[in-house]
Amino acid sequence: METEKYDVIIIGAGPSGLTSAIYCGRAGLSTLVLEKGFCGGQIYLSSLVENYPGVKSTDGATLIATMVSQAKSFGAQILENSPVTEVDLEGKTVKTEKADYSADSIIISTGNRWRKLGVPGESELVGRGVSYCATCDGPFFKGKEVAVIGGGDSAIEEAMYLTKFASRVYVIHRRDKLRAEKYVQEQAFANEKLEFLWDTQVKEIAGSGKVEKLSLENSKTNETTGLEVSGVFIYIGMLPNTEMFKGALETDERGYIKTNERMQASIKGVYAAGDVRSSPVKQITTATSDGTVAAVSAVQQSQGLL
Amino acid sequence: METEKYDVIIIGAGPSGLTSAIYCGRAGLSTLVLEKGFCGGQIYLSSLVENYPGVKSTDGATLIATMVSQAKSFGAQILENSPVTEVDLEGKTVKTEKADYSADSIIISTGNRWRKLGVPGESELVGRGVSYCATCDGPFFKGKEVAVIGGGDSAIEEAMYLTKFASRVYVIHRRDKLRAEKYVQEQAFANEKLEFLWDTQVKEIAGSGKVEKLSLENSKTNETTGLEVSGVFIYIGMLPNTEMFKGALETDERGYIKTNERMQASIKGVYAAGDVRSSPVKQITTATSDGTVAAVSAVQQSQGLL
Repeated sequence: METEKYDVIIIGAGPSGLTSAIYCGRAGLSTLVLEKGFCGGQIYLSSLVENYPGVKSTDGATLIATMVSQAKSFGAQILENSPVTEVDLEGKTVKTEKADYSADSIIISTGNRWRKLGVPGESELVGRGVSYCATCDGPFFKGKEVAVIGGGDSAIEEAMYLTKFASRVYVIHRRDKLRAEKYVQEQAFANEKLEFLWDTQVKEIAGSGKVEKLSLENSKTNETTGLEVSGVFIYIGMLPNTEMFKGALETDERGYIKTNERMQASIKGVYAAGDVRSSPVKQITTATSDGTVAAVSAVQQSQGLL
Repeated sequence: METEKYDVIIIGAGPSGLTSAIYCGRAGLSTLVLEKGFCGGQIYLSSLVENYPGVKSTDGATLIATMVSQAKSFGAQILENSPVTEVDLEGKTVKTEKADYSADSIIISTGNRWRKLGVPGESELVGRGVSYCATCDGPFFKGKEVAVIGGGDSAIEEAMYLTKFASRVYVIHRRDKLRAEKYVQEQAFANEKLEFLWDTQVKEIAGSGKVEKLSLENSKTNETTGLEVSGVFIYIGMLPNTEMFKGALETDERGYIKTNERMQASIKGVYAAGDVRSSPVKQITTATSDGTVAAVSAVQQSQGLL
């Protein structure tokens, strides 16, 4: 297979990767973006984005479509449905099923993903009532009762979104208070369709062919109960998408890639940006900033300045 | 004078300050933004912004107007024409001519400014060929001849960046050698599109409606010449807008405020965000990211989490 040569290869087409593509393309670097599925990253599924500065109330898909069109207008090549099958960060080569690529620099923007509960029934019933995305699957639960697992911002925001469809939304949290922002909490406690089950853990998701019942355990009383629901939405934390780089780069204790303030990872010519990078806050703004800085570094590297 | 109390006071209403206001307001903090002039910061003057992700070709004023409306929609109070006359960062009190304010946290987003040449035509032609940012405006000069004023690292790096677009880049420096680092110089001297004019000062920037010509003077021979260019990029140094905090906070050697990755400055409850902060890249994206992180920190502080 012939190897196609680019100045920079960007792995992952969420907000950080697309921003890197905008900046690299605009600076005249030949730029390839490899995306395993479709462009967008996690924000693609958000039905309402109201806190991205400079864009008054939009949705994730619209925001991403604009970023894609900006990146393309500056000459970046974006390949969807192109999962990386092999990568050599030292040698700067990347393979997909269709082709081999090489570059002077690689920007990793593969993002992160939701953690699984790891209880019986979870994997078996994914897509049959078990979901990690209220925006995708909420409308399937019109007039039904569902549960949300978790107590952070995402859990509560998505629970509130689900009240648009479900007749009742149980929020099941293993602690006795929420981690979500105060503003979010106030909104949640005022919502009559939400019901909170505190100090509660899910032991099993049961049902024949589709979700029918949760087995719950109260961690203070050890009491076990059953809860009949048609859907369960799981929001209990996130994992970085770093499997393909395992062991090759320095990471923090949770597996996120460590960089300096120029987004340089522990191998020269390799940069990390966005949700996959070790950082305290993960928002669209922090992703686009990371993507900008990684791109500026790649440009400086191409001119022998870094 | 009575003291008005807020949860957070943000000093400066550019992209970073306004983003902090959006995030603080949305999180339910009472938020005051004090702006010495009008909202916008440096980006306000940009006539075309095409690399802010998610917004397809806009201008600085439009982008800022949207951010202002977002911040107001979440309850932030923004006071323009309200220069801070006195500030006590330890005590978290801020005075303007009109009122006294106090808060639990202060976010400093006062930005920086280019040192001006101070020659006729400079102010009049800003945004019409006079620029202080090659990364922002370089692509507008494809196939044209431009000049860069200065001899430091920034001047030379930006001049090299401009060679990607311009047909010729004159580097005009008042001394007979560069201040830039040696390896930067080597790259520069090897670049055939760069032409160096030594011992040369700009006396005037001329043009009707847009930059057309520079009047130059050789400081050794006193000879005066004209140079036809379409753009002039001025890099004779930047200054952080930190005068009002002099000595109160740790800064880097150039006077920019040092923070950790949560944007915490060296006094508890004080955060810095955007161009005033010590950081390697300064773009709208990096400013909105800083503003986001500073706000998230202020919110966490208000909940006793930081």
